[in-house]
Amino acid sequence: MSNQNSTAILLMHCPDQPGIIAMVTDFINVNGGNIIYLDQHVDRIENVFFMRVEWELSSFAIPKEKIEEYFSTLYAAKYNIYFRLYLTEYVPKMAIFVSKMSHCIYDLLARYTAGEWNVKIPVIISNHPDLEDVGKRFGIDFHIFPVSKENKQTQEKAELELLKKYKVDFIVLARYMQVISEDFIRQYPNKIINIHHSFLPAFVGAKPYHAAFERGVKLIGATSHYVTTELDAGPIIEQDIAYISHKDSIEALIHKGQDLEKIVLSHSVEKHIQRKVLTYKNKTVVFN
Amino acid sequence: MSNQNSTAILLMHCPDQPGIIAMVTDFINVNGGNIIYLDQHVDRIENVFFMRVEWELSSFAIPKEKIEEYFSTLYAAKYNIYFRLYLTEYVPKMAIFVSKMSHCIYDLLARYTAGEWNVKIPVIISNHPDLEDVGKRFGIDFHIFPVSKENKQTQEKAELELLKKYKVDFIVLARYMQVISEDFIRQYPNKIINIHHSFLPAFVGAKPYHAAFERGVKLIGATSHYVTTELDAGPIIEQDIAYISHKDSIEALIHKGQDLEKIVLSHSVEKHIQRKVLTYKNKTVVFN
Amino acid sequence: MSNQNSTAILLMHCPDQPGIIAMVTDFINVNGGNIIYLDQHVDRIENVFFMRVEWELSSFAIPKEKIEEYFSTLYAAKYNIYFRLYLTEYVPKMAIFVSKMSHCIYDLLARYTAGEWNVKIPVIISNHPDLEDVGKRFGIDFHIFPVSKENKQTQEKAELELLKKYKVDFIVLARYMQVISEDFIRQYPNKIINIHHSFLPAFVGAKPYHAAFERGVKLIGATSHYVTTELDAGPIIEQDIAYISHKDSIEALIHKGQDLEKIVLSHSVEKHIQRKVLTYKNKTVVFN
Amino acid sequence: MSNQNSTAILLMHCPDQPGIIAMVTDFINVNGGNIIYLDQHVDRIENVFFMRVEWELSSFAIPKEKIEEYFSTLYAAKYNIYFRLYLTEYVPKMAIFVSKMSHCIYDLLARYTAGEWNVKIPVIISNHPDLEDVGKRFGIDFHIFPVSKENKQTQEKAELELLKKYKVDFIVLARYMQVISEDFIRQYPNKIINIHHSFLPAFVGAKPYHAAFERGVKLIGATSHYVTTELDAGPIIEQDIAYISHKDSIEALIHKGQDLEKIVLSHSVEKHIQRKVLTYKNKTVVFN
Repeated sequence: MSNQNSTAILLMHCPDQPGIIAMVTDFINVNGGNIIYLDQHVDRIENVFFMRVEWELSSFAIPKEKIEEYFSTLYAAKYNIYFRLYLTEYVPKMAIFVSKMSHCIYDLLARYTAGEWNVKIPVIISNHPDLEDVGKRFGIDFHIFPVSKENKQTQEKAELELLKKYKVDFIVLARYMQVISEDFIRQYPNKIINIHHSFLPAFVGAKPYHAAFERGVKLIGATSHYVTTELDAGPIIEQDIAYISHKDSIEALIHKGQDLEKIVLSHSVEKHIQRKVLTYKNKTVVFN
Repeated sequence: MSNQNSTAILLMHCPDQPGIIAMVTDFINVNGGNIIYLDQHVDRIENVFFMRVEWELSSFAIPKEKIEEYFSTLYAAKYNIYFRLYLTEYVPKMAIFVSKMSHCIYDLLARYTAGEWNVKIPVIISNHPDLEDVGKRFGIDFHIFPVSKENKQTQEKAELELLKKYKVDFIVLARYMQVISEDFIRQYPNKIINIHHSFLPAFVGAKPYHAAFERGVKLIGATSHYVTTELDAGPIIEQDIAYISHKDSIEALIHKGQDLEKIVLSHSVEKHIQRKVLTYKNKTVVFN
Repeated sequence: MSNQNSTAILLMHCPDQPGIIAMVTDFINVNGGNIIYLDQHVDRIENVFFMRVEWELSSFAIPKEKIEEYFSTLYAAKYNIYFRLYLTEYVPKMAIFVSKMSHCIYDLLARYTAGEWNVKIPVIISNHPDLEDVGKRFGIDFHIFPVSKENKQTQEKAELELLKKYKVDFIVLARYMQVISEDFIRQYPNKIINIHHSFLPAFVGAKPYHAAFERGVKLIGATSHYVTTELDAGPIIEQDIAYISHKDSIEALIHKGQDLEKIVLSHSVEKHIQRKVLTYKNKTVVFN
Repeated sequence: MSNQNSTAILLMHCPDQPGIIAMVTDFINVNGGNIIYLDQHVDRIENVFFMRVEWELSSFAIPKEKIEEYFSTLYAAKYNIYFRLYLTEYVPKMAIFVSKMSHCIYDLLARYTAGEWNVKIPVIISNHPDLEDVGKRFGIDFHIFPVSKENKQTQEKAELELLKKYKVDFIVLARYMQVISEDFIRQYPNKIINIHHSFLPAFVGAKPYHAAFERGVKLIGATSHYVTTELDAGPIIEQDIAYISHKDSIEALIHKGQDLEKIVLSHSVEKHIQRKVLTYKNKTVVFN
């Protein structure tokens, strides 16, 4: 998708008010932008208007580096709009964090290698050496930071420096089995995507498949979410489930769950890369 | 299904041991029973063997009223088998409890009226008068027991007497919005089927759709389970989900959830009537 | 939902052109209409723009009986817009056609009786007497028109007259097992909703469950569609599936399929009543 | 799973007859085999009995290389049993055929590399050079056989020789976009697994997503099946679907479909490796 025409993507939310769609689309139209995608949503309880608009820049009158400023000056301040503007010509940089299980990282890298995503993955970080080979197979730098209670703060500091060095825009926790500290999380607000191996909020925390087995549920789930400082409680991006039965052992749950985990995580990463996810009050609006 | 040939259904579990299938099937075969269904399961953690066998009685050498005694004497005591024997010629009696919402009871009665189930529904009990018409439409006795904190004990006693009068074998709570007391539940162990409007154990208790909306989940669920003395914690029979998005209001969740609730509940009632559900240690084995 | 505020719903499609959303929303806004729903879609292959807008009429400057004329004069002719305008204060009239199976009609009537839909069902038509009781239970006129090769034309004529007498706006075929003639269909273009008991286009025609069983598929499906003169080939509104296995007999497929059929059909009827379905070139746009 | 204890797996079918389960389980028990899995199925239309039994060999009295002979002599001939016996200590060899798309092969190799399967993949064959890198990444021999109308016979002959050289037991077509000749197929009866990118039997042949888009379906599917001499008509192993809407372009269908294809194919390969698939009269029995 990297060979697509250069477009701008506006993700915005503001207090709902009459004429807001007309106003924004008019801004794009009169300046020669051709809208190729528009989707909007009104939260009638919070009375908030959400919109995603994408338009082609080839004949757009405002220089691309000035769009943000113009929109901010002309509309955002006036209508109390919170927005982000993305240019698809920019290729965001993504880091992957892993531990020992490979199913999620392989799924991510298979898509990446096939050229499906407008992203660059310069670095993989792990707290274990087990998947070093995966980095080699795909030619991606692989750094190991073993984490213990004692060295956690130091290691996270080193990780953050490394992320800065690689100019990483967002992080994907591909079954990274280590809780990240609040300080770290605050550096990447709504920019760390995690996959939790249960249908949240059921089975928060460690060993959710064991808990699911114990409870005798008839479905298992997987949940991708942005990481916030409260464990497993950030804005949910996507969830999916698989049917199970009494025949399934804990091992079977873990095995079946891996397909859910990797697909749900990859979908969420894709949505994030495509700038289709908006967060608001610990919830997401996911445009399609 | 009531016109099927007379069959016997054996539901059993026991410590797993070599030769148990051979032994039971041999018992049936040598006595002239034709097995038309056999399914088994071994829980390798608890080391428990579960089986459901159904066989035709037309040429079975043991009189049907003696099968239980023979099996008990010859095998059950010896091999530590816990079992129940059902004859399909017996038509179990089912009571429906409702409050104000009609989607579940209509789904149950539509199937019942179409003759899908080997069951008799002689009575509907409600804590509200709202659905009295439903009883009239389908010609089923409808009794109203308004429940308050003060009269709960008395009303439940009256309900229990009524259930005895109608010779009710099991109870279906079709969105009955009133917690049943422990004393009542103990009268019908694993014989009260409830539908909870969430994917348990997420969102236990009242207003699960509100909680789901608040948390921003991307799926809603419904769970049928046998009622035990711990609220919403009994053995789960069936669960299903529907995909939702940020576009769905609480009202939309409630509306979409009703289809899940009625289908999951009716499936569970069907499985129960067909004697396909075995409970063990707060979990179910559901044969298919 | 009949007690909602009076709103107008505009369903439209036209050649895609810049500024079309701005133009229509502006028309509503400047005349004092409060938009409570807007969804749009662009078919980039056909280059067609589709939109559904709903707005409150309480402060709308144009009298409701004049909106259609105004929109037609000011915009539709000019921009080559094909549109339909609906006022939610009008309660459409729906006829149900059935044969012998009751699962779909019960599901429709349960929702209708619960007041879920802004619709009036004055009449049920059947080619068999089997479900006459259903009409009685719900107090709806039930007319029987046995159809044979010889009398088909006469009977359909009588049915059409009856539909006119009851001022029926659209027809729901709730497992009506009789092919409707082209002449009849042309009287209700995109106004006859059928449920086909397969995942179309697999297993067109009669006995799809038998064909599915024969082929050894691992899923069964149901498809709702508008009836056109080509059998089972009209615009698809909704489809769903259920997983099956080698264990399922033809009878099991038929039984499991009934839940799909009734839910898919009722969803489609609901979408139709809510004016959320647009047809274009034998396909549907279904807004949500 | 390669570190599991050595077991024997018996897959069998025969005319249904009383006592068949008892007889086979008795054969295993009296010879000291511990049954760790048993599942059976009776096709009541064809009157055929199917069974899969797995037992531990550690204390089994019959030498493993003699089990087949003994079972054949003592039972198979007598009861008209068609059976296959597998020892889990044998590691089957699997070849992958690919063309240009990488999603399926990456999914297969990720599972393989993680050690999930009791299989050896010595060779990848392709009619295009595009995915040669994938072979290199995973250290698997990659052979290119460009196929044209003229050279097809010769190339297939060379492929068959190569497969023999690598002692390949079964073949997985991971989106191999080239029809295989009947002669080739006959060399690997029920040993070639294909993934078709539609819900078969809908959209047989080339470009099923285009056909699905054209028809306006609301679901897309994927179907894995054993390859037979009739195109896309072999025994179905697994099927799954994804929901789509009018918003999805053909490209979106292709993109969403890839997740279905890879998961359905990998599941089927796993079932095949685990000896859980039995074929009978162009249908499969898939034990779980």
